[in-house]
Amino acid sequence: MFSGAQLSLYPMADDFVGIILGAIKALEPYRPNFRIETDDVSTLIVGPPEQLFPAMRDLFVAAASSGKHCVLSATVSRGCPGEPDDAICTPLVSAPPDLPLRDRIEAAAAAVLAAQPTGQPVAAQFSLYPLGAGHHMDEIYGCIEFLKSSGVFDRSKNFCTKLRGDAGPVFATLAEAFLRFGAPQGHVALDLTASANSPTVA
Amino acid sequence: MFSGAQLSLYPMADDFVGIILGAIKALEPYRPNFRIETDDVSTLIVGPPEQLFPAMRDLFVAAASSGKHCVLSATVSRGCPGEPDDAICTPLVSAPPDLPLRDRIEAAAAAVLAAQPTGQPVAAQFSLYPLGAGHHMDEIYGCIEFLKSSGVFDRSKNFCTKLRGDAGPVFATLAEAFLRFGAPQGHVALDLTASANSPTVA
Repeated sequence: MFSGAQLSLYPMADDFVGIILGAIKALEPYRPNFRIETDDVSTLIVGPPEQLFPAMRDLFVAAASSGKHCVLSATVSRGCPGEPDDAICTPLVSAPPDLPLRDRIEAAAAAVLAAQPTGQPVAAQFSLYPLGAGHHMDEIYGCIEFLKSSGVFDRSKNFCTKLRGDAGPVFATLAEAFLRFGAPQGHVALDLTASANSPTVA
Repeated sequence: MFSGAQLSLYPMADDFVGIILGAIKALEPYRPNFRIETDDVSTLIVGPPEQLFPAMRDLFVAAASSGKHCVLSATVSRGCPGEPDDAICTPLVSAPPDLPLRDRIEAAAAAVLAAQPTGQPVAAQFSLYPLGAGHHMDEIYGCIEFLKSSGVFDRSKNFCTKLRGDAGPVFATLAEAFLRFGAPQGHVALDLTASANSPTVA
């Protein structure tokens, strides 16, 4: 299974290049497990599905520590049938069996409870796309039920769900939505926007 | 059918608020046709599917005319079964009949040829998600065939396709991908990143 993300970091500051170059150092611990490629629009990370959201969390928290308004935007994907299998994407733990939706909702909530806080408040919104299945809305509604119990649920918006809280549980919630909903070996995409230090009052 | 977008504009500049407030004026001609709501993460536009990309093009070109590095990021959706129908989303022209893929590829290419240039060069990348259908990869491969003939195709990347050229034909290409691929009344989502004035050499 191929898994990875196209991500971009947007510091709303004249010194955006300096903030990005400083934040990228937060990816160092992940480099041995990832293939990383950058162009003028985004950075591709390809690697184990469980490490995608921790890597994005650490990158984003590093940028947000500048105090400037920063946004991370990412297209995250697993199981795309148009991508070749890649050994670097092997899950770190064995794929869970195809559990009933109810059990997956409970396991996801338990994983978020165990997430360590980072001290960085963030707002995040995302859309989950379980592709190629006939029952994609069932998986989405099951995921929304988990999100409402996550402790970082902010509200449902048109086309997406908004989370708010510490970056630790927020990115853990995103990871659980991505890993546990949609078929285990199916094609799932997730479209993420995370924002910190916005001058707009929520 | 419900259609709209959650969009965000990111000027990489200390004066990001001023650039955003200036660019928003470009949406004025569209306001009679749209419902528009803004919070701290994104702006929702809900309206006729054919006007979504022209509105985003005008907004983005206005921001990019600042000369600063600017990015527009958007989640665009039509036909989501979880959204109520809304009269404001009525297509401006009658929905085309369910044409064969080959005819849709040709009609899309003709529409891009007719697009007016804006004078603003942009790079854009996007992913198209035809949801709930059993043959979603057929629609994606058909769309990719159109993109390769669009005149603004840059390259295929993991998880997305990259376009480059004048904002006129680039946004026309995005609109055609969104409107003509996936079932006419089906649920289609599109995840867009458009970038201008990047200091990174492509």
